[in-house]
Amino acid sequence: MDNSPVVAQADVSLSNSLLVSLTAKSDSQLQQKVGTDFDRAMMQRCLELARRALGRTSPNPLVGAVVVKDGEIVGEGFHPRAGEPHAEVFALKAAGANARGATVYVNLEPCNHYGRTPPCSEALIAAGVAKVVVGMVDPNPLVAGGGIARLRAVGIEVLVGVEEADCRKLNEGFIHRILYKRPLGILKYAMTLDGKIATTNGHSAWVTNQEARSVVHQMRAACDAVIVGGNTVRLDNPRLTSHQQEAHNPLRVVMSRSLNLPEEANLWQTKEAPTLVLTEVGANPIFREQLLKQGVEVVELSPLTPERAMAYLYERGFCSVLWECGGTLAASAIAQGAVQKVLAFIAPKIIGGSNAPTPVGDLGFTTMTEALSLESVQVRVVGADCLIEGYLPLRQ
Amino acid sequence: MDNSPVVAQADVSLSNSLLVSLTAKSDSQLQQKVGTDFDRAMMQRCLELARRALGRTSPNPLVGAVVVKDGEIVGEGFHPRAGEPHAEVFALKAAGANARGATVYVNLEPCNHYGRTPPCSEALIAAGVAKVVVGMVDPNPLVAGGGIARLRAVGIEVLVGVEEADCRKLNEGFIHRILYKRPLGILKYAMTLDGKIATTNGHSAWVTNQEARSVVHQMRAACDAVIVGGNTVRLDNPRLTSHQQEAHNPLRVVMSRSLNLPEEANLWQTKEAPTLVLTEVGANPIFREQLLKQGVEVVELSPLTPERAMAYLYERGFCSVLWECGGTLAASAIAQGAVQKVLAFIAPKIIGGSNAPTPVGDLGFTTMTEALSLESVQVRVVGADCLIEGYLPLRQ
Repeated sequence: MDNSPVVAQADVSLSNSLLVSLTAKSDSQLQQKVGTDFDRAMMQRCLELARRALGRTSPNPLVGAVVVKDGEIVGEGFHPRAGEPHAEVFALKAAGANARGATVYVNLEPCNHYGRTPPCSEALIAAGVAKVVVGMVDPNPLVAGGGIARLRAVGIEVLVGVEEADCRKLNEGFIHRILYKRPLGILKYAMTLDGKIATTNGHSAWVTNQEARSVVHQMRAACDAVIVGGNTVRLDNPRLTSHQQEAHNPLRVVMSRSLNLPEEANLWQTKEAPTLVLTEVGANPIFREQLLKQGVEVVELSPLTPERAMAYLYERGFCSVLWECGGTLAASAIAQGAVQKVLAFIAPKIIGGSNAPTPVGDLGFTTMTEALSLESVQVRVVGADCLIEGYLPLRQ
Repeated sequence: MDNSPVVAQADVSLSNSLLVSLTAKSDSQLQQKVGTDFDRAMMQRCLELARRALGRTSPNPLVGAVVVKDGEIVGEGFHPRAGEPHAEVFALKAAGANARGATVYVNLEPCNHYGRTPPCSEALIAAGVAKVVVGMVDPNPLVAGGGIARLRAVGIEVLVGVEEADCRKLNEGFIHRILYKRPLGILKYAMTLDGKIATTNGHSAWVTNQEARSVVHQMRAACDAVIVGGNTVRLDNPRLTSHQQEAHNPLRVVMSRSLNLPEEANLWQTKEAPTLVLTEVGANPIFREQLLKQGVEVVELSPLTPERAMAYLYERGFCSVLWECGGTLAASAIAQGAVQKVLAFIAPKIIGGSNAPTPVGDLGFTTMTEALSLESVQVRVVGADCLIEGYLPLRQ
C-alpha cells in the first residue's frame, strides 16, 4: 500500500548526483546574492581555477583569480602550491597591460603582508586595476579586512561576498586550520542500510558501488592526509590513494600503538604515495626499522591519541584530514574533537549481523537525547548509493 | 574543502518531503503515459477517493471510481470496506441518469464475478456507460481481463493502464496477497547515522523527529497489522497506534513464545485499538488469562515463527503487515521471507556504541557480496530526517 498519503512528493529527474538539504536553510540558500550574474559567474570561474590545485596548497588556501576588461577575461591564475606566487600574481601576469583599469575577481581577500611572497594588495595597486571583487574576507580575525582596506585606501572599488558560501566551502579546511589551529577532521564511512560497515567476520569489499568509491577517491585527492588504524590495515589492506592519474595523493597515515602490523601491506608500497606510521615511543623497534627501509616514515608520539595526531598534522601544515578508520578509532577521534565533519555513504542493502561492526564505537552515551546531531546536513545521491553529510556541533 | 569537485549537483527547493530514486528507472519513470492529461487527472482522483478507506478494506483492494459526462464529474465513489458495495456502484448511484453515455474511471479492473456483491461489469453495462478507463487489470491471473472483456463484448470502449504504476503502488499489499497468498511484509525502523536503533543500554526515545514519527503513524493507518516482539514491549512500551482522530488503527500484534511480558503495558489498553498476542501452545496460562480479561486476543501457533504468523494473518484477510520489531525478530522475518519491503528512517545524528542494537540481526552472511540489495530504491527527505525505502529481491 502507498505509505505516503499526506506527504507531498516531488519527482526529480536524477542525474549522477542530486543534492538536498535536510536543514531548513542550507548555506547556499542563505547565501545572499551579492553582485551581478556576471560577477557570480566570474567568481565560480575563480573557484574552478582554484580547484586545479586541490590537495596541493596546504598550509595555504585554494585561490583562483580572473582579470576582466570590457566584459572579457584577459587573465587567469591560481595558486599552485605553498611557496609559489599567489593566484592574483599569475592572473595579472597573464593580463599584462590589460590589467590597467580592469576588474580582478578572487575568491579570497588579497593578502596584505610580506610572507614568502610580496603582498597581493600591492601587486593589484601596481597593476592599476580599477575594481576588485572578493569572495570572502581572510578568515584570520587578526588580518581580516586589511587587504580590502589597503585597496580602498588607494581608491580601488572593492566588492566583497560574491558567492561567499561556495568560497567558504572550498576552503573550509583552511578556514578551520586558521581558526582552531588544527586540520579539519572529516570522518568518512560506508555502511549498509542496516548500519554495518562489514560482515560479522569483518568482510567489507564492497559496501558501496563504483560511483561512491570514485567520489571517495576524489575526496582523498582533496585532503592532505588519510588516517586509518592498525586494524583496518590488517583486515582491509587498503591503498588509500586517489586512484587517478595526475591527481594528488594524500599522506597515508596509520595509527598503531604497538606496531603490530602486517609485514606486507599495500600501504608499505611508498612509490605510489607516501605513508606515515604514527606510533608510541619505543614500540616494536625491529618492525620500525623494516618500515623505514621501505620508505615508510615513522613518527613516535606519546601518548598516541587522535588529538595528538591532529596536533602533529597541524604542525606539518595540513588543512584537512580524512578519517577512514573503523568504529573504535572513529569514536575516539569524535570524543577528542578530532572530527568536525561526517560523510556517511549508505548502500541500500541489508547484510545483517548482531555483532557486525558499525561506524562509530563507544561514546559513552546512555540516552538517545545525548546523540550528536549533525548540522548543515545534505543528502546526495551518488550512483545507486546515498551520501549523507553534515557537521558535528562545535565544542564550546 | 569541497569534496565534490566532479560530481554534478542540483540544488532543489525543499518542501516537507522530497523523493528521488536511486535506481536508474523508477516505476513512475517507466510508467507509460497512457490516456490524456484529463484521463490521468481523473485516475488520480480515483486514487484520492480510494485512499479515504485506507487500512479498512482488506482483504479487498482500495478502489475509487469517478463518472464523467461532458467533461464534468457527475458521480464519485469508493469502496469503504469488505462486504459493502464496490466503488463503481457508489459512483454510478451518485451519477444517476447521467451515467448513460458517460465515461467511468476506476483504478482497478471492474469485477466480473458474483461475490458478496453482484459483478460491477454488469452494473456498468446496466447503467449504459459509453467508456470505462481502468488503472490496472485484476492482479489475480485467473480472472485478469475478464471484466474488461465483458465490457468490450457489449461494445463499451475500454482504456487500460492509465497511471498504472500509481495504481499498483496503492494496492501493493492487495496485489501481493493475491499473488503470494501472504500479506505484504514491511520492515520499518529508525536508526542514527551510525546505524543504531537505540543506545547501548536500549534507550531509543527518540531517534527521529516528529515529522518522521508522523509519517510512521500514517503508515500504521494504512496497514492491517503492526508486529513487535516481546523485547520491544518490555523496553519501549509502545502504543503502535496511528495517533490520529478517525484514522484506522492497525491490529497490534505481539509475538512472544514465553508470554514473559509486563503486567502493565500500553498495548494491553484495548479501548484505543485491538491487540493480538501470538504465542506458543500452552505458554504461561496464568498471564494468558490475564491478557484475555483485559480484552487482548491471544492465539497459540506452533511453532511461533514469522512465517507462521504471516500465514495466520493471511487467513485473517490481511493485505499488509508492518514489522516494527527489533533486530533479532527483523532478521528472522527477513530470513523466512516475511518481509518484502524495507522502510529505513535515518536521523542525521551520531550516538555511538559498539554493542548498541542495530536494525537487523544475524542473517548468516559472511561476505559483503551476500548482502540483500534492495530494488526500486527511493530516498525521501522527511522533516530533518531521511527515509530510504526499497524492496527485497523476490525469492525464487
